Amino acid sequence: MSGLSLEELCARGRAAIPILQSESGDVRDRAVRAMADSLPENAQEILAANALDLESAAQNGVPPQMRDRLALTEERLRGIADAMRQVAALPDPLGTGEEWVRPNGLRIRRCAVPLGLVAMIYEARPNVTADAAALCVKSGNCALLRGGKEAFRTNRAMVDCLRRAVQAAGLPADCVLMPEDPSRETAQKLMRLRGTVDLLIPRGGKNLIRSVVENATVPVIETGAGNCHVYVDESADLEMALAVVDNAKRQRPSVCNAAEGLVVHRAIAPKLLPLLRERMPDVEFRGCAETCALLPDCVPATEEDFYTEYNDLILHCKVVGDVGEAIAFINAHNTGHSEAILTQNLRNAERFTAGIDASAVYVNASTRFTDGGEFGFGAEIGISTQKLHARGPMGLSALTTVKYIAYGDGQVRA
Amino acid sequence: MSGLSLEELCARGRAAIPILQSESGDVRDRAVRAMADSLPENAQEILAANALDLESAAQNGVPPQMRDRLALTEERLRGIADAMRQVAALPDPLGTGEEWVRPNGLRIRRCAVPLGLVAMIYEARPNVTADAAALCVKSGNCALLRGGKEAFRTNRAMVDCLRRAVQAAGLPADCVLMPEDPSRETAQKLMRLRGTVDLLIPRGGKNLIRSVVENATVPVIETGAGNCHVYVDESADLEMALAVVDNAKRQRPSVCNAAEGLVVHRAIAPKLLPLLRERMPDVEFRGCAETCALLPDCVPATEEDFYTEYNDLILHCKVVGDVGEAIAFINAHNTGHSEAILTQNLRNAERFTAGIDASAVYVNASTRFTDGGEFGFGAEIGISTQKLHARGPMGLSALTTVKYIAYGDGQVRA
Repeated sequence: MSGLSLEELCARGRAAIPILQSESGDVRDRAVRAMADSLPENAQEILAANALDLESAAQNGVPPQMRDRLALTEERLRGIADAMRQVAALPDPLGTGEEWVRPNGLRIRRCAVPLGLVAMIYEARPNVTADAAALCVKSGNCALLRGGKEAFRTNRAMVDCLRRAVQAAGLPADCVLMPEDPSRETAQKLMRLRGTVDLLIPRGGKNLIRSVVENATVPVIETGAGNCHVYVDESADLEMALAVVDNAKRQRPSVCNAAEGLVVHRAIAPKLLPLLRERMPDVEFRGCAETCALLPDCVPATEEDFYTEYNDLILHCKVVGDVGEAIAFINAHNTGHSEAILTQNLRNAERFTAGIDASAVYVNASTRFTDGGEFGFGAEIGISTQKLHARGPMGLSALTTVKYIAYGDGQVRA
Repeated sequence: MSGLSLEELCARGRAAIPILQSESGDVRDRAVRAMADSLPENAQEILAANALDLESAAQNGVPPQMRDRLALTEERLRGIADAMRQVAALPDPLGTGEEWVRPNGLRIRRCAVPLGLVAMIYEARPNVTADAAALCVKSGNCALLRGGKEAFRTNRAMVDCLRRAVQAAGLPADCVLMPEDPSRETAQKLMRLRGTVDLLIPRGGKNLIRSVVENATVPVIETGAGNCHVYVDESADLEMALAVVDNAKRQRPSVCNAAEGLVVHRAIAPKLLPLLRERMPDVEFRGCAETCALLPDCVPATEEDFYTEYNDLILHCKVVGDVGEAIAFINAHNTGHSEAILTQNLRNAERFTAGIDASAVYVNASTRFTDGGEFGFGAEIGISTQKLHARGPMGLSALTTVKYIAYGDGQVRA
């Protein structure tokens, strides 16, 4: 792909689309399995590139947490390959759905077809490169992968392997594409290639996603912003509430379905808050005045805190008078991702699930379950926090659209 | 609604949403029937407003065709009310879909829920005001209707009736909203109310739709651009081909599913084209060099012609060597709306339906069938020419999104 402009690269992709789309599910699955095999097989080449990326990252002061995500090992490569094989094993998202015959004899069938060219803009996470390529090829789409510049050499080595594997499996190598220039300008240009890019999925931090949503003219699916809450109702089982809040906040604080906010009914707050504080000594509490009155070391929360996804061991806390106030508070601050209520009161559970505006609403369970695997959908492309096309964990069908095919024998409209 | 800014109006709508969304399908249907009744019941008030709009339109030199679309009569009002009653009679698009239990006992259900605030930007067609309000209330959404300024007084009179009817039926009047200022600035502002407007559907000409797509930051569904083709293959039945091309071009040339282009196999062109010319004497043919050689009065087509949706009695024509060339030509020029092949050759039919990138592909039938009613979907909101969320004729389900509701008994993630 050396020396190709972004437009030339996209033209290659668009030329590959009809060939890819004409192939059966078996051929696409074989290609994905070959792609999976190619990564451990070429571990030496990939790990050498990764070592160079890691060296530059250290020199450029990239934070250790980010370098950890960037780092590959033979074991991680095998894990990535296993995840790709799981994608290959999923049911084919393409094909014919319902078919019906109209009174005039026209036979209409609804078919699930690929979108075409799917672009991803993401950060320095080489596993996303492999996942996205597998999900796209599985669903008959061409993948255009623009990862973070810190992972550029790693991504290039991986994409080279993936392209050779796709080609060896009988599909065009151009089903998997990567721009030669990983700069911000490339990302900006990509967002505006309307008519060329059928879908752009940004994966990464809030600023990346906001920039894409505000600047893109191509169709976008927003993913991953999660200011998620747990509301502990008056009637909650105290032990269950402690366990669920702890899990939602601390089991993996860096991910989007972790809780950022705690909302507590006034009647249970004096019991719950001190026990929670004791149970989670490593968590910083930032609360409303009532929370602060109950917890001596609580930091007063600003209004901005209540909008913040910390992805860290910090929890904003708000005391409320009833479930209606909890719903209003959450809907005013959340990102439409995942919300939970702890309650033994059926009516409050139903008010909460009906009233909360989010992709997933839980009764007596942790927000951490919003995930393609946990929902039983298999591998996911991301978690959509928008309402159009896909909402919540997105399976392969989010990479498809519909085509109506109608057979007649000369029908004309009267 | 007098004196409210657009933001204040939207705030009213957002306050109405939870009340509307908590009502059952029966209540929503009753409201839609009451809205339908209210129009003929208040014919005098509405027709008086319409007469003023028509008078200004005539003074301002609005073309007769546009004034005809703007004009209401008692009979047209009854027709509009009937269409609204048909919307009320459709199945409820909201409710619970599948439910499944995960191995850990978490019970997940997938629910169809309203989008929230749905805005429409359209031209001077009062029937769209009524249709859109009915479709939105039926599907639990608040409707914000910004019609063309030429129809402002008519729309205001209609919306006043609809709001009174909604309120009398026990729902908030603010389920149906209309900005006080129908200017372009209002439309521009509306497009950028991200977080407030859940979906914006532009309905109207190419320029309106392009302006929305390029400027909107709110979610949009593109509708109605139709550069549709009929391809007559070598093996086509000649009589059928003549009838279908005639129907696709002339039965109602102003609509988006009418054919704008004819693509003809070289082997059948010398027979087909002169017969078609004779059959459609009122159609202007604009063709490639080969078409011109076969039709003495054919106008040479420019490359721009091949991209043009005339919505008029003009047809662009291209002679090709085989079905592959036809597919490539159509995909390079079409708008993804509706395409047809006339053929007796099964393999060519299958290549065409697989290879064409459009919402609807016909074999031996007119493109004019791409329509919610003709597909059997009932009333339609529009015909989506995009791939995300909805493609082709959009029924009520296009105004819904999904919410996952999960019940547990203290599940936490390991």
